[in-house]
Amino acid sequence: MPGQSVGAVQSHCAHFSEPIELRSGGVLPAYDLVYETYGTLNAAKSNAILVCHALSGHHHVAGHYADQPDNIGWWDNIIGPGRPLDTDRYFIVGLNNLGGCHGSTGPSTPNPATGQPWGADFPMVAVSDWVEAQARLADRLGIDAWAAVIGGSLGGMQALRWSISFPERIRHALIIASAPRLSAQNIAFNDVARQAILTDPDFHGGHYYAHGVRPVRGLRLARMLGHITYLSDDQMGEKFGRELKNGSFSFDYDVEFQIESYLRYQGDKFAGHFDANTYLLMTKALDYFDPARLDGGDLKRTMARTRAGFLVVSFTTDWRFTPARSREIVAALVANGRNVSYAESSLNFGHDSFLMEDSHYHGVIDAYLRNIVL
Amino acid sequence: MPGQSVGAVQSHCAHFSEPIELRSGGVLPAYDLVYETYGTLNAAKSNAILVCHALSGHHHVAGHYADQPDNIGWWDNIIGPGRPLDTDRYFIVGLNNLGGCHGSTGPSTPNPATGQPWGADFPMVAVSDWVEAQARLADRLGIDAWAAVIGGSLGGMQALRWSISFPERIRHALIIASAPRLSAQNIAFNDVARQAILTDPDFHGGHYYAHGVRPVRGLRLARMLGHITYLSDDQMGEKFGRELKNGSFSFDYDVEFQIESYLRYQGDKFAGHFDANTYLLMTKALDYFDPARLDGGDLKRTMARTRAGFLVVSFTTDWRFTPARSREIVAALVANGRNVSYAESSLNFGHDSFLMEDSHYHGVIDAYLRNIVL
Repeated sequence: MPGQSVGAVQSHCAHFSEPIELRSGGVLPAYDLVYETYGTLNAAKSNAILVCHALSGHHHVAGHYADQPDNIGWWDNIIGPGRPLDTDRYFIVGLNNLGGCHGSTGPSTPNPATGQPWGADFPMVAVSDWVEAQARLADRLGIDAWAAVIGGSLGGMQALRWSISFPERIRHALIIASAPRLSAQNIAFNDVARQAILTDPDFHGGHYYAHGVRPVRGLRLARMLGHITYLSDDQMGEKFGRELKNGSFSFDYDVEFQIESYLRYQGDKFAGHFDANTYLLMTKALDYFDPARLDGGDLKRTMARTRAGFLVVSFTTDWRFTPARSREIVAALVANGRNVSYAESSLNFGHDSFLMEDSHYHGVIDAYLRNIVL
Repeated sequence: MPGQSVGAVQSHCAHFSEPIELRSGGVLPAYDLVYETYGTLNAAKSNAILVCHALSGHHHVAGHYADQPDNIGWWDNIIGPGRPLDTDRYFIVGLNNLGGCHGSTGPSTPNPATGQPWGADFPMVAVSDWVEAQARLADRLGIDAWAAVIGGSLGGMQALRWSISFPERIRHALIIASAPRLSAQNIAFNDVARQAILTDPDFHGGHYYAHGVRPVRGLRLARMLGHITYLSDDQMGEKFGRELKNGSFSFDYDVEFQIESYLRYQGDKFAGHFDANTYLLMTKALDYFDPARLDGGDLKRTMARTRAGFLVVSFTTDWRFTPARSREIVAALVANGRNVSYAESSLNFGHDSFLMEDSHYHGVIDAYLRNIVL
């Protein structure tokens, strides 16, 4: 893929002193949102794209920090001059969502009522709350309407929700590797992950900060499990197969197969830095997401609320959110006569395909965004 | 399905004082095998069927105990007069495998060297070890050759291994919902389950018996995760969907969706009685199973060692061991000109389908067994 990185970037913090009432009934009296921007907002303020993050993502979407050259944004491969999210043309905004653990107000930031981390007292957040908070950030940046909102997985759900909550403020929604709601199996995986964290003796009912510990065992298990669902069976087979770590069976519970080494490494790495309460909140936001509830479960009626153009992309090897789930969204849009493009990629990385660089997949995004009239 | 239960049954214990050397290099100086039999061994001793159990199974395969009328064997629906494993015709044997926790020698039984439970000192057991122990039980019962060996999942792997290890002692192998080896994804799920147990603070390196505790948190997570892989996505969707436990969102970490209630119940129930060390051993036996290693990974060459007739059955909704995995076995048998029948059932219960009562599925087993000449 041609194009370059955006290079050195900076993050910013926007403080909001107006309370936000959440879907769960909870209220945040004030909050911070950490965000980054790449490219330049044009005079008409018509070229802004919002990038929404998935479960473990954040505001550092592209580029690197001047003092941390190896700290590359999580979707750097798609953003920059000449890349599909072309910063010569677009003004890109990424943020850390409410409840996150990368600087925005969340369970690990101080509860103004106590001065201590919110912990388990942080209210549940829903996708619709994130979209509301993102709309306030747009106000702050002077953006009346996004040229596009884009995201993969849980990020795609935010793009979808934008098209429903603020039909006049989003011109295009790019919904990648996503679903209109979780299946029972999706919820089941989330619940096992949550139970791993909730039953970790170091969880302390969510107030582990005060105990000077973190539920790393539970978080590690949650991430190992998550990783299985992010990868395709085939890719896992091709990459790891039954290859042994040390050439022969050791007949103990240390790492025996390469796949075990990979999973444990991923689990350890994640558990070392991610906040467990945030992980819990994100999985609950996934479970709750079901915009068709607005209309008695009828997704077609819900999508009648939208005005945007849509690009929906799925991956044949994604068994977490299969192409069939994306096609539910497409069908509901088509039934309403909405302008919708759909692409199915055969990228072999399962659910994680949406993060990968691939000429076909990126070409689809590129072509769609190039055709938007600013 | 016509047919009756075998009614009241009794379990027996066979003590073996000859040491058994295991695939892992470990040795059991002596051991017990708990078993049950149903029906009558004929004079020619040609009508014996061995039923092998899967991960959490045991010797109580059919019928009930006189003093425990509700304690029904785990595969009762297929065994009895007039049922596919017809006790009017066959002599059925079920046993608890070495390393089990239902009476046979395993981690929770005393280590003769210490008088304390073996715990983590119990040697790793492989499918080939189980088959060896089962052969010694056959000797004890006077059975030179099984009319058939049958099993689902890990039980099917034992039937397959029988056909390779003792080609002259098995006339038919019935391999159901099984695979010739685990995939990387299969191993990955097993490893997450093991890590849940191994990192439970109550595991105490496998010597939890001495501490008066059990790693119930880890075992519960392992079972919850297992259950997701045993059920089909579709069936989970049909049975539970996104149905809420209390009709509306509660926005907390208690049970919100019915599927969570089901999984936690299954996890609690299992963790209440199963031995964690046995669970670990069983999952490792699954991981290690790969008989084609005998022949440099060439399953076709390995299956050339067999002499039995084969019935291979798979389920289209089984995503743990898909039909493609069964067809690998069939292809290797066909390539060797072996007598093999293959059936694919569309039963909707995922991997667990093999335990279900169904006229098509049971009809296939019934027809195959009826055609065996005793």
